Order: sequence, then structure tokens, then C-alpha cells
Amino acid sequence: MSNYLGFKGESLNLQEISDLVTSESCGAISIFVGTTRDNFNGKTVVTLEYEAYESMGIKAMENICSEIRKKWSEVQNIAIYHRLGEVPIKEASVIIAISSPHREEALKATEFCINSLKQSVPIWKKEMYANNESSWKENKECQWSSNYVET
Amino acid sequence: MSNYLGFKGESLNLQEISDLVTSESCGAISIFVGTTRDNFNGKTVVTLEYEAYESMGIKAMENICSEIRKKWSEVQNIAIYHRLGEVPIKEASVIIAISSPHREEALKATEFCINSLKQSVPIWKKEMYANNESSWKENKECQWSSNYVET
Repeated sequence: MSNYLGFKGESLNLQEISDLVTSESCGAISIFVGTTRDNFNGKTVVTLEYEAYESMGIKAMENICSEIRKKWSEVQNIAIYHRLGEVPIKEASVIIAISSPHREEALKATEFCINSLKQSVPIWKKEMYANNESSWKENKECQWSSNYVET
Repeated sequence: MSNYLGFKGESLNLQEISDLVTSESCGAISIFVGTTRDNFNGKTVVTLEYEAYESMGIKAMENICSEIRKKWSEVQNIAIYHRLGEVPIKEASVIIAISSPHREEALKATEFCINSLKQSVPIWKKEMYANNESSWKENKECQWSSNYVET
């Protein structure tokens, strides 16, 4: 049972991340890929840029893994990788992969993992629009982030 | 909005299947990979072999896609590929990939899709054990399969 966690400055490799969690004892791998979308609130987005507080981010990812292993003890391996820097349209900003002997645990754990990641990992996103404007955003689902920025 | 469905005699390519559903308008891709596990009810499995009633299988997959599009209208693209023939330990027998603008629809639709696939697609599985025994199985979750075999 292993966790593979990290931030990467280059493209995330889906096959490599899936291979990390693949196990002889598992019949299921559930994967979530978050990709850059070409629009936000009606504005055309040309690229996204991500920054993270890395050491705090890894700690938040470790906490998510602990929660998953408490809730679904059958889960075998967990991989969570987030890209930093510019992420063009259609490319992956985050990939989560989770393996388990049977499918239900992997599926439920993946949904929990991406929801938790959005809520608890300190990542900021800059949207660059087609009109050359841009805007930095905290994750709006992140409960601590506004406090964090203020302190 | 497209569906990509099929049975394949060779290895399934995760990146290719993910690329099929990737869309500029989508921020989420949910993927399920079913892999060959090394044990079943305490017996050591060395490989699995799959056979399908292909035309009926594609029809069942099309019905699943229609159901998904009724339930989650935001879903953009759906890919369902099942491997046939021998599938060694750790390799993929089935890959499902679904994209949507936001993550909830893709996640829910993928869970529904693999559960429906197990229940309604006519696929038989032969388990080959380390002791040289083997056994053909209908999908035990498949509600019509015992009727189908009898008629």
C-alpha cells in the first residue's frame, strides 16, 4: 500500500501515473483527470497557470490519503499529481489514480479525493483570457484559503 | 458529443482512449480501468480470457450511453472499450472514459457505466488457474445472462 504524491512543472503522464498504482491484487483502477477548459463564466480562457504552496500542499495530500485509508481499507495504491505553471487548454492540471481489489472502493475514493483536494490543497489558479486580461483565483471551494491569504 | 465503443483483440491504450474523450469545453475526465487480478476465491489466477457476443455487446453499450445522456446531459464524450482474448495479470480488460465540463457528471456517469456494463453486456470470462484448471463464467451480475444461455 503506497501513496505517490507530487507537484510537477511539466506535463503529467497518464500512463505512468496509472502504472504507479497498478497491482496484481487489484481488479480496479479509478482515475480522475482535471483539464483546462476553454471558458469560464462566459470568458474565453486561453491557458491556466497554477501556483502552489508545495510543502503545505503535500501535507494536505497526505492527510487526504489517510482519510481515504480510514474510509476504504481495501484501497491499495493512491497517486495524486498536480501540475504547476502554465497548463494549455485540454491538458491535465491534476491526475488522481486509485487502485483496489474491487471497483466500488476505488470509485468512491477517487470522488472523495478530488473533492477533498479542491477543498484543502493550497493551489492558486491564474486564468488568462483571450482579451489579454487575466485573473488570479484562490480555489473557491477551499475553506481555509481566504483566512490563509489574510494572515 | 460522441460515443466511442468497441471490442479489441489487443492491449487497450489508456492514453489513446483518454484522448478520444478530451474536449476543449471540458474540465473533467473520469476513467475506470478494470484489470486482471491474481486471485479469485482463494485460487491463484494466471490469466483471464474474454469472449463476447460482439454485436449484442455494442448494442448494450449504446443503450448505456443513451441512459447516461438522459441522466447527465452535460456529459460530452463517452468511450467504452473491452478487450477480448487472453488478458494477463495487471493488464486492462475494460477501459471507460467520460468527459464533462464539471467533475460531478463525469464521476457519476463513470460509476453508472461500469455497473451497467457488468449487468447488461454479454461477456464471458475464463479464469485460468495456477493448477492448470480453468473455468468459464458468465458475468454473475448480469441479470439476463442465465436466461440468454438457456434459450
